[in-house]
Amino acid sequence: MEFDDIRALVKKNDSKIVLMVIDGLGGLPQSPGGKTELETAKTPGLNQLAKEGICGLHEPVRPGITPGSGPAHLGVFGYDPIKFRVGRGVLAALGIGFDLKHADVAARGNFCTVDQDGRVTDRRAGRIPTETNEKLCKILSDIKPSDGEIFVRPVKEYRFLVVIRGENLSGDIADTDPQATGVEPLAVTPLSEKAGKTARLVTEFTDQARQRLAGHAPANMALMRGFSQRPDWPAFPDIFGVRAAAIAAYPMYRGVASLVGMDVLKTGDHVEDEFATLEQHWRDYDFFYLHVKKTDSAGEDGDFNRKVKLIEEADALIPRLRNLNPDVVVVTGDHSTPSMMKSHSWHPVPALLWSKNCRTDAVAQFGEQACLSGALGARFPAIDLMPLAMANAHRLEKFGA
Amino acid sequence: MEFDDIRALVKKNDSKIVLMVIDGLGGLPQSPGGKTELETAKTPGLNQLAKEGICGLHEPVRPGITPGSGPAHLGVFGYDPIKFRVGRGVLAALGIGFDLKHADVAARGNFCTVDQDGRVTDRRAGRIPTETNEKLCKILSDIKPSDGEIFVRPVKEYRFLVVIRGENLSGDIADTDPQATGVEPLAVTPLSEKAGKTARLVTEFTDQARQRLAGHAPANMALMRGFSQRPDWPAFPDIFGVRAAAIAAYPMYRGVASLVGMDVLKTGDHVEDEFATLEQHWRDYDFFYLHVKKTDSAGEDGDFNRKVKLIEEADALIPRLRNLNPDVVVVTGDHSTPSMMKSHSWHPVPALLWSKNCRTDAVAQFGEQACLSGALGARFPAIDLMPLAMANAHRLEKFGA
Repeated sequence: MEFDDIRALVKKNDSKIVLMVIDGLGGLPQSPGGKTELETAKTPGLNQLAKEGICGLHEPVRPGITPGSGPAHLGVFGYDPIKFRVGRGVLAALGIGFDLKHADVAARGNFCTVDQDGRVTDRRAGRIPTETNEKLCKILSDIKPSDGEIFVRPVKEYRFLVVIRGENLSGDIADTDPQATGVEPLAVTPLSEKAGKTARLVTEFTDQARQRLAGHAPANMALMRGFSQRPDWPAFPDIFGVRAAAIAAYPMYRGVASLVGMDVLKTGDHVEDEFATLEQHWRDYDFFYLHVKKTDSAGEDGDFNRKVKLIEEADALIPRLRNLNPDVVVVTGDHSTPSMMKSHSWHPVPALLWSKNCRTDAVAQFGEQACLSGALGARFPAIDLMPLAMANAHRLEKFGA
Repeated sequence: MEFDDIRALVKKNDSKIVLMVIDGLGGLPQSPGGKTELETAKTPGLNQLAKEGICGLHEPVRPGITPGSGPAHLGVFGYDPIKFRVGRGVLAALGIGFDLKHADVAARGNFCTVDQDGRVTDRRAGRIPTETNEKLCKILSDIKPSDGEIFVRPVKEYRFLVVIRGENLSGDIADTDPQATGVEPLAVTPLSEKAGKTARLVTEFTDQARQRLAGHAPANMALMRGFSQRPDWPAFPDIFGVRAAAIAAYPMYRGVASLVGMDVLKTGDHVEDEFATLEQHWRDYDFFYLHVKKTDSAGEDGDFNRKVKLIEEADALIPRLRNLNPDVVVVTGDHSTPSMMKSHSWHPVPALLWSKNCRTDAVAQFGEQACLSGALGARFPAIDLMPLAMANAHRLEKFGA
């Protein structure tokens, strides 16, 4: 359903919707037939919500697609990640909390190694440590373009962020990263007429970077890709007619929430801080997105037991959520991060939707196996969640007469 | 799948398909963990069909969307209600059985109250009784436009139907209903060049209506919206290659069936009459849509027990249906109408498909919980039903070689 169709049905009331995203929630058993992280965890709070509500497993992007954090969150927010694409440069900016302005152009940078003839020999500069990256970014930060400003910020290892700020800029610039070794970095090429000025500034940056990095092998050159600007999308509060707040400790998630126009609330580093923020602002908003990060990190680290423990920590906070007397609660992950794979995966993600208006199913435990027989379905598109939450909050009018 | 793709696969044979729509079939339990109306009802006939066939729950429009009767029926007929939209005026005409011609323009009217300055003070004229409405419609029926004809018919309370008949008319007219109080009714505005003449006739009607209603406060003015013409859609018999008959006691459903080009059969007021009509015309058609209305009305009235009883009455007629020896039977609702909500709802709708060619599932009772584990799925698009019925009737060729 298009956003315009949803917007046309939206009505307002005093209901409160909470979307709790436990990052990388979905998992895999340690051995065939065993239990996943979520199934191993003791989760009385989530089980009770599951019992009173409806369950299922969602696919964030499309069947078989392993999503990055950006697209995965967009899906859960109701934005089809295939239609709503974010450039790599913008994602890099969001990831480190860089305050990207609407006219800025961002690109993802790689420090790389080039030989005497300028040909790339290692696209990742031997995966230099982040400390080296930080030093090199300082060196590049001194570059002054002939017009506007350039910001260079370290990300991790060989990865950095470049942001060009000025008037009349465009993200229509081809990658300079050749995605191969044995060839020179590609020339800076504008992909549309309006990108001429941007191309000149990027060329200036590249030339200067080559000179300044010359003595710093293995990181003696910089490659860039994913030139992009903040997208101009329909805003979540406008589509769904809710005052929407995001509560997330990590920059990437604050960034994605701000891309869709949610108010990003100041909060602390821990999940407890996030719940305190939720309680503190309960009266001020209709919709809350609350993000639990560390489960994903444990999965990425391959630490099954730590992920179990972190899920239990999140579960222990459910009573605080229920004390607020919300009308609709959705608990899910943005994607699966099985500890056994040490990475994001395509596996469907457990989801529960709780409200007084559910037609409950028989699922009484919040886990991958149990969710298979739930009323939400065993493999449903993540973008279904928001309209279902809105319906359960009585925030949608009848379609047609 | 687009209609052209289906049409290209259609083949004909002697099979008979019956689609029985029990209006507002889906429900909710009276208290958490209890049984719904359908689950409470004793339905040996439906249970046997469910046992021999396959079950599931459909969503008429999209997840979370509560449909009106028109869109809900279109979904079950295989027409995506998001693509195939019916104007409010046309729906109002269908609802009272007005014989709307293809060139007619219909609008939904509201009697309203305006103050001395012509500003709307009550968009529903204090919800005047239907008898007052009928009198006022007679007064307005006398209005003679400078060209063509105008028909004014009462609907219910403050709602009426206006139909303009003539040559070169168009439904591209903006609503005159400002959807707010404290402002004047909006001027009649054509939205395209071809709507100029229609706008003039509507203006004449509005001016006359203002004069004639002047002394009839609280109903001293008329607002209009949803100007529309009968849509020109691909016809159901043409898409699916079937001689299709509609058997429905109520005007709205006869109207929707006629919109998609089904033959609307004369029948009586009761479900028994409808079954007699089915028997009588069994040889004349390949496809029968049979509509059971009163279950929805009971749901709208919040009468759980009456809805249970009406479902049982419909169930008692299943043996008559089976005696006809149909090839494919689909039994479902157009949408859910939980008695607990006294209104249509977004909850998925129980559906069963019976034929000798089903790969049966384990569902042996036709109810919401049981259907969750059925072969049709826990939450499938209503538009899947027609292609599945066609396949089970061996009426679709292989796609590709």
